[in-house]
Amino acid sequence: MAQIMLGKEVNASLNERIRAKAEELKAKGVFPTLGIIRVGQRGDDISYEKGAMKRCATLGVEVKQFLLPADVSQETLMETIQQVNQDKGIHGVLMFRPLPDHLDEEAACAALDPEKDMDGITSGSMAGVFVGHEKGFPPCTPEACMEILDHYGVDCQGKRAVVIGRSLVVGKPAAMMLLQKNATVTICHTKTQDMAAICREADILVVAAGQPDMVTKEFLRPGQVVIDVGINVDAEGKLCGDVDFAQAEPVVAAITPVPGGVGTVTTSVLVGHVVEAAARQEGR
Amino acid sequence: MAQIMLGKEVNASLNERIRAKAEELKAKGVFPTLGIIRVGQRGDDISYEKGAMKRCATLGVEVKQFLLPADVSQETLMETIQQVNQDKGIHGVLMFRPLPDHLDEEAACAALDPEKDMDGITSGSMAGVFVGHEKGFPPCTPEACMEILDHYGVDCQGKRAVVIGRSLVVGKPAAMMLLQKNATVTICHTKTQDMAAICREADILVVAAGQPDMVTKEFLRPGQVVIDVGINVDAEGKLCGDVDFAQAEPVVAAITPVPGGVGTVTTSVLVGHVVEAAARQEGR
Repeated sequence: MAQIMLGKEVNASLNERIRAKAEELKAKGVFPTLGIIRVGQRGDDISYEKGAMKRCATLGVEVKQFLLPADVSQETLMETIQQVNQDKGIHGVLMFRPLPDHLDEEAACAALDPEKDMDGITSGSMAGVFVGHEKGFPPCTPEACMEILDHYGVDCQGKRAVVIGRSLVVGKPAAMMLLQKNATVTICHTKTQDMAAICREADILVVAAGQPDMVTKEFLRPGQVVIDVGINVDAEGKLCGDVDFAQAEPVVAAITPVPGGVGTVTTSVLVGHVVEAAARQEGR
Repeated sequence: MAQIMLGKEVNASLNERIRAKAEELKAKGVFPTLGIIRVGQRGDDISYEKGAMKRCATLGVEVKQFLLPADVSQETLMETIQQVNQDKGIHGVLMFRPLPDHLDEEAACAALDPEKDMDGITSGSMAGVFVGHEKGFPPCTPEACMEILDHYGVDCQGKRAVVIGRSLVVGKPAAMMLLQKNATVTICHTKTQDMAAICREADILVVAAGQPDMVTKEFLRPGQVVIDVGINVDAEGKLCGDVDFAQAEPVVAAITPVPGGVGTVTTSVLVGHVVEAAARQEGR
């Protein structure tokens, strides 16, 4: 019987801190505002956007949407990015990715003001994550994983942490953040051999493989803390993670559910970044 | 009886490629030039500088030295950096670090033109290493480790690589570069528990701990490839690495000596970066 690490429990205290900080800013006449740039109508984007807007409303953060057609030109996209960069009323920006194939995503990310980059997509933010300093903002998802570990009092120091996945959005930054917490970190990926044995060595396992139910009981042992970053749709159309929850839950010490785990916290981390960005920009 | 992976053997082919490319540029009237910024008279810096200048001379690369007193002001240092940034006759810059305590090293690194950053000290270069793309230049020392692995035909894909050390100069970038070569990478450091057992799991072990003879036979098993990045002076005043060579050599499959291993290759990698930078800048 594992402890189920619930996103809503993590959010309870996290959201309290964010709301208090937003109130403080508003008392000074600063209204923390998130700009959302979305190209096209991808279901994933719209669903995330809905959640983010709801969370913003709850926590007292305003939203300005910039909705562009799926066939938007690079030029128009770049103009939109310049517009949000220059708008002092927008403190942070979320730009949905991947962008449609005809667009130059690298150029778009590079154009965004690093101080308004809420999700670690500019090279300045990525260097910050790599170096381990507090400038800029890391991507929201791996930071949500760290918030969960912190909330449940998981001490990483000297522990073996294994990350499955090496994306720039989750795997690599999660590895750097665990290293920052003094864990001994191993990064696994599609080319890893005997991944189950390596995962069994982990005290803390962060799974961002993007493969439904990939982590089965062979990957697990008693005492582990498992963070499941995956969000997949199973054969029956239900949301599931990268970890086979039914197999994992009887074995490990603690696990995040899907849905109701990392994803829930990610949205709060995003809103927290906007409030923090507003505070930093206000100080100038 | 391990294979001794000698820096000079790696350099033989590496230097040939660098020299040929330098010749090609000179035929076009471009003379690849390294700018060296050194503050004070640290023995380590001077010794590295000597080696670098000798290698530059051998490979047909020119050097301009900017030698500043140990008590130089931040202002003068920043002016010097601006000067090398603006000088079109200087293609790459090596700035020795650490800078004396009274100087703001972060500001100095940030001021350097990323395109002239030969040793991965700007945030643009660091983001490049983190992302794994070919822009900018990674730090010379971890790249030298990769050159050694490549030269000796060590295939990293699916292998377990363990890096001891998490510095920005060696450990973290080495880990990212091994990941790029599809190894399963573990990063160990001073807070790691039971490091010897973790190192025994490695197929490839990169040691950048900065502790003389720290890696003893308990860390090793037959079949391993060991890259020793350490350069220390032992009790008798002789150079030694982080690996106890006498204990390691009978056990492992291949090992780099100190001196004559990684350090030798690092200098060539630096000069190679200058030539490559000259080629890139010439194309504009």
